[in-house]
Amino acid sequence: AGQRLIGKVLVGTASFYGERFRGKRTHTDEVFDPDKLTAACNKLPLKTWVKVTNLRNHRSVNLWINDRMHPKNKRLIDVSARAAKELGFYARGLTKVRVEVIPPP
Amino acid sequence: AGQRLIGKVLVGTASFYGERFRGKRTHTDEVFDPDKLTAACNKLPLKTWVKVTNLRNHRSVNLWINDRMHPKNKRLIDVSARAAKELGFYARGLTKVRVEVIPPP
Repeated sequence: AGQRLIGKVLVGTASFYGERFRGKRTHTDEVFDPDKLTAACNKLPLKTWVKVTNLRNHRSVNLWINDRMHPKNKRLIDVSARAAKELGFYARGLTKVRVEVIPPP
Repeated sequence: AGQRLIGKVLVGTASFYGERFRGKRTHTDEVFDPDKLTAACNKLPLKTWVKVTNLRNHRSVNLWINDRMHPKNKRLIDVSARAAKELGFYARGLTKVRVEVIPPP
């Protein structure tokens, strides 16, 4: 995404998607891999780097947005299973997050 | 489903679906609740009771089939997050299972 979005911050709910979607095509025509640090989001352009922080435990991870969620999905972001594990909300399934657009790390 | 299917056994891969789908309508027009013992399956009639056994640890749970998976989903069954936790494959995301049609427990 362009430079102008860098620093933009969004807050909302994150879910995750995992093994069920392994091998599926993402919206950027990449192959979804639950073990990679990627995410789906409808509020930011594709091919954007974001720093996602779990507001319950303040753990953060940088993710590559390469996918969209279902249009009716009210959540902010849907992260890969690996990202959910690193952010510490895999067992819960959902959490509140802060999403900040960052330059490519 | 009718009596005649009782005893039918299928073996294949199970995945799970969880918080992301809470509140969505199932194919039987019930509300999906990841904390309930339900499943989606394309190989058996809706409103069928099945005993699902995890072939990696032999743990079993009785599930109510109230949903369908995406038509192109090659897996045998997609269980609720709670069922995946009871069957002991939530962290892994996928496992091989035996599915047996049973009378209503």
